[in-house]
Amino acid sequence: MSGLQLFGIPGLPEIAEGTDLAVAILDAATAAGTPLHDGDVVVVTSKIVSKAEGRTVELADIEPSPFALAWSAQWEKDPAVTEIVLRESKRVVRQLGPILITETHHGFVCANSGVDQSSSGAHGRAVLLPLDSDASARSIRAGMLAAGVDAAIIISDTFGRAWREGQTDIAIGIAGMQPITSYIGDVDPHGHEFKVQALCTADELAGAAELVKGNLSRVPVAVIRGHAWERDDSATIAPVLRDQTRDLFR
Amino acid sequence: MSGLQLFGIPGLPEIAEGTDLAVAILDAATAAGTPLHDGDVVVVTSKIVSKAEGRTVELADIEPSPFALAWSAQWEKDPAVTEIVLRESKRVVRQLGPILITETHHGFVCANSGVDQSSSGAHGRAVLLPLDSDASARSIRAGMLAAGVDAAIIISDTFGRAWREGQTDIAIGIAGMQPITSYIGDVDPHGHEFKVQALCTADELAGAAELVKGNLSRVPVAVIRGHAWERDDSATIAPVLRDQTRDLFR
Repeated sequence: MSGLQLFGIPGLPEIAEGTDLAVAILDAATAAGTPLHDGDVVVVTSKIVSKAEGRTVELADIEPSPFALAWSAQWEKDPAVTEIVLRESKRVVRQLGPILITETHHGFVCANSGVDQSSSGAHGRAVLLPLDSDASARSIRAGMLAAGVDAAIIISDTFGRAWREGQTDIAIGIAGMQPITSYIGDVDPHGHEFKVQALCTADELAGAAELVKGNLSRVPVAVIRGHAWERDDSATIAPVLRDQTRDLFR
Repeated sequence: MSGLQLFGIPGLPEIAEGTDLAVAILDAATAAGTPLHDGDVVVVTSKIVSKAEGRTVELADIEPSPFALAWSAQWEKDPAVTEIVLRESKRVVRQLGPILITETHHGFVCANSGVDQSSSGAHGRAVLLPLDSDASARSIRAGMLAAGVDAAIIISDTFGRAWREGQTDIAIGIAGMQPITSYIGDVDPHGHEFKVQALCTADELAGAAELVKGNLSRVPVAVIRGHAWERDDSATIAPVLRDQTRDLFR
């Protein structure tokens, strides 16, 4: 049977600032009896990347602005968290009732700038998205290459969408492979030329990885084996970010 | 290694109106050396469902409205196709330049009401989305159950998204399992309660399936093996359709 295999990497240590994620992931995979191979796609949940990079903040250290204070009081939110969400954004895309959809400095449109309070390791801390999630992916890829494993890396996060309920894991950083596979100009079996079809393979890989990671278990890394990808060390997530001038929903 | 296996089902016959998809898929899977198992999730591209259900139209039979004629002339579109797109929609969500985003009668927000001209089997025909894609999924599931295979069925299509470039395959119909996995009320390893997390597993499964189907090859069906799902024959895609009153982007 050709096809893909997907599996999670259990047994990672608690990630702290400075943890070498490449080494930690390689070691955990080997200890689990599933050592990584050349050609694997490794999907890493952004939260552990943020922890390794020290992208956490003490809420007590944050001084909320008057705007953050007023809105938080109205909707029973923590004003320090609201302040962080605003600082992590370059623009508020929608603000209605308790919902705050922002565009992050990276250009991601998501709820609360991707700021997370659910499992920061202690009360009173928030986890921010990595500053440069492509750089995070490149760093993990380089660390694995140094250890002899040529893997593509995707940093994933759990985002909501317009129009559809339920969140999905999507890619916020990538290294080693392009995120989009374009069929534009190719011809289908009936001779029709594809005019618009370009698949966001990176998002499909990130979503697939969520199926084996789970959200309640501590399995923040998953491997997709058997996916053919073309090595490209210039790859970034930028082609996935729709330019505002092309966006009808921003 | 626990985890998931994903593989495509090659060798399906050309699908025509009346083709029994359950039988065709089971036979092709067995012929390919990968017979389907109880517990498999089978993802079927909507296009072959539409063909089996006769959801194709001859463009020559369509009389475009004045609105369809005028807009099509402006943007060099086929007015018959525009007319079909409008008839398949209950509302135009965005219309800007040559782009036409509609809400279909089912409640899906997508480009061109999901109407497809790329591989209809002949020039001058268009393939419409299935009339009731949950019913299509239930019919395939029932056919497989009758043949002794208890599989969950997802009907998938390739949709664009707001904010992000690149399309992904998502679920437009489902049978046997609920499309959304909710963690709301569950508690993470650090004792935080999940307040908002509900994952659209069906979309992640559909996207994962695309990775092994490919768009240029004739592999319109893929299997995900190893995904734990709870049998629920009341399941529909409805929970995924965000109500317009809850939607900030419609």
